Amino acid sequence: MVEADPQADLRRRSLDYHARMPAGKLSVVPSKPCASPEDLSLAYTPGVAAPVREIVADPDKAYDYTAKGNLVAVISNGTAVLGLGNVGPLAGKPVMEGKALLFKRFADIDAFDIEVQARDAEHLIDVVAAIAPGFGGINLEDIGAPVCFQVEEALQAMLDIPVFHDDQHGTAVIVAAALQNALELQGKELGRAKVAIVGAGAAGIAIARMLRALGVADIFLSDLHGVLHSKRTDLTQWHKPFAVAPQNWDLAAMLRGADVVIGVSVRGAIPEAALSTLAPKPVIFALANPDPEVDPALARHLRPDAIIATGRSDMPNQVNNVLGFPFLFRGALDCRARQINQPMLLAAVDALAKLAREPVPDAVQTVYGLTAPQGLTFGPEYIIPKPLDPRLRPWVSGAVTAAARESGVARR
Amino acid sequence: MVEADPQADLRRRSLDYHARMPAGKLSVVPSKPCASPEDLSLAYTPGVAAPVREIVADPDKAYDYTAKGNLVAVISNGTAVLGLGNVGPLAGKPVMEGKALLFKRFADIDAFDIEVQARDAEHLIDVVAAIAPGFGGINLEDIGAPVCFQVEEALQAMLDIPVFHDDQHGTAVIVAAALQNALELQGKELGRAKVAIVGAGAAGIAIARMLRALGVADIFLSDLHGVLHSKRTDLTQWHKPFAVAPQNWDLAAMLRGADVVIGVSVRGAIPEAALSTLAPKPVIFALANPDPEVDPALARHLRPDAIIATGRSDMPNQVNNVLGFPFLFRGALDCRARQINQPMLLAAVDALAKLAREPVPDAVQTVYGLTAPQGLTFGPEYIIPKPLDPRLRPWVSGAVTAAARESGVARR
Repeated sequence: MVEADPQADLRRRSLDYHARMPAGKLSVVPSKPCASPEDLSLAYTPGVAAPVREIVADPDKAYDYTAKGNLVAVISNGTAVLGLGNVGPLAGKPVMEGKALLFKRFADIDAFDIEVQARDAEHLIDVVAAIAPGFGGINLEDIGAPVCFQVEEALQAMLDIPVFHDDQHGTAVIVAAALQNALELQGKELGRAKVAIVGAGAAGIAIARMLRALGVADIFLSDLHGVLHSKRTDLTQWHKPFAVAPQNWDLAAMLRGADVVIGVSVRGAIPEAALSTLAPKPVIFALANPDPEVDPALARHLRPDAIIATGRSDMPNQVNNVLGFPFLFRGALDCRARQINQPMLLAAVDALAKLAREPVPDAVQTVYGLTAPQGLTFGPEYIIPKPLDPRLRPWVSGAVTAAARESGVARR
Repeated sequence: MVEADPQADLRRRSLDYHARMPAGKLSVVPSKPCASPEDLSLAYTPGVAAPVREIVADPDKAYDYTAKGNLVAVISNGTAVLGLGNVGPLAGKPVMEGKALLFKRFADIDAFDIEVQARDAEHLIDVVAAIAPGFGGINLEDIGAPVCFQVEEALQAMLDIPVFHDDQHGTAVIVAAALQNALELQGKELGRAKVAIVGAGAAGIAIARMLRALGVADIFLSDLHGVLHSKRTDLTQWHKPFAVAPQNWDLAAMLRGADVVIGVSVRGAIPEAALSTLAPKPVIFALANPDPEVDPALARHLRPDAIIATGRSDMPNQVNNVLGFPFLFRGALDCRARQINQPMLLAAVDALAKLAREPVPDAVQTVYGLTAPQGLTFGPEYIIPKPLDPRLRPWVSGAVTAAARESGVARR
């Protein structure tokens, strides 16, 4: 292993980081004193009988006397882990622990990862429903399509706490916010843009749904077999609403004249040759991690008139889910919401888009080694906030809580 | 509510303790740095791919790169919660959080509570097996008999991590250790003692099994319907091995001449009138919480020749499970044991019994407001260690680890 290789070096540093004692990334600690015999008599027998009796009488008291109200389960069956695919539940654990760590780091939410060895969608639904009582919310993670749709819909119908598949809605929220700003900067209207989405998995479908809700009429999706169209026999109920008329649709036709191309696929999925066929002043989101669907430097070279975003932290305009899920759940938990509904997602989109237009404080610039005014200013290279911006929590969570209350899903 | 009432006061203090922000008793926190963009790139994408790939190649690497190796799930269906009965999964949560807190406090184990809404034993088994991959051990808690026996046996057969029902084995270990010492102080032999167990639920059956394994031949159990005997038609497969010949066995006959009476039932289950019929120099363990099966002060008055133990922290000889489960799991996790087997349980019994015979350091006496030599000294009022004794972890866990290695269930 040559240490000068940046990939090998990252691997080494990551394994060292994870293996340092205590192994892994999460610890469960008492949030109350437990040193003295008196403490223990309150935390356990005989004192603990009091909150038990209160919850028997009124289940909502669990929010007052247990950790439930700030507790999110990060749940995966390990079938679609990052760019790594179906690695199984146990091998997905580092990712799920990482997700839980981000919940804490960004929104002070206690999140605990549970990896499920599930036989199928029904089994996963049954298991998650069974363990749900103690949690204030469920974050589904890295579950392959179409199982992810089935599981989320079923659990949302069964449970009275938020159930949120981040790979769908987290991605959709950030993309929609970034896209609103990008189109405004390009002088285009969302409702009149032609949008081509390359990739029709969980993220692609959710983005299409979100953009349709925001008024985009002209939406096309493609997968490995080409554009989704009405003569295809392999489409699920979640794909069919986006099937277009079957008029010679291939990927090149879909991209020709597109105002927006959004890649949620793999490296190479956006052909370089197609870039020159996009509409003038296009928006190109190449979001595959770690390698975008098309080389961003090449895209910039070929289309100097484009606004470009990726999933990478080392490039401008990082479309990163961490801008969404911590604050969506924070907002939902703060009002003990029964669900995370469409108005709450739209409120997050709006808050993120607006926050990007605000001047960026020096404290945030500094985190990224920048200084105002040469640093982060609303424009083609800064269309969405950066993850370490401390304004995210009040802006996004506050908007989400308000939307939950207005839409009648808040318990308080 | 009159605050001078000690019960009402305890209730008030416990509710205040549990409701203080953050509500509940547990928090999930990062165990690794996660402040900088560099930290986050190791904890999550892109760095997290490295440990994922390692675990795909070798599942045991999860012990090196995730929290699994120090992580115990505290799992309950809420059907037999403390003395409160079938309160359901959610209302059991304060107890399960308390248990997790004790794991951390006493043995530095990360324990996380999961309350399961289970339809029946098969469902509970299926759910626990499905979520087991990410954990290093499973502590079953407050699950009613006989479901608890079915669930534990099935999971032990299915999983390659320790599965331990504390209400059974935790209790049995502490009782066995205390009883060995009590009988020695009374000048009696374990193998020749007549033992009467009042209560034939999870704890009663487990104690009977443990004592039989330790060589006690003369064991009787009773439940609400009287002594377990071979003509009864209501006995499960777990009760039958302790059914005796059906010769006029009633509770009075069972207790007459008993060297040992162990109550794991409810207040009143040991009739006062029976105390005078026990053998000379008896051992009386009245372990129901918070109210013992017979008033300990009355028992002391009627039988000044007895050694008496209870479950209460405000009396001598507290038989408390916290002496067992933290250190049994610590010992098991330290060697990555595949199970907690009988040799490990017996090693814990032996270590606890021996530790009680050691001089008690001043530091431990002080915790309990005592001073040597008037304080804790091996004898009728000190037959088992006290919960806050820091020697418990090295003594008990060390013995358990050694037994795991000797019996071939340790991974390292």
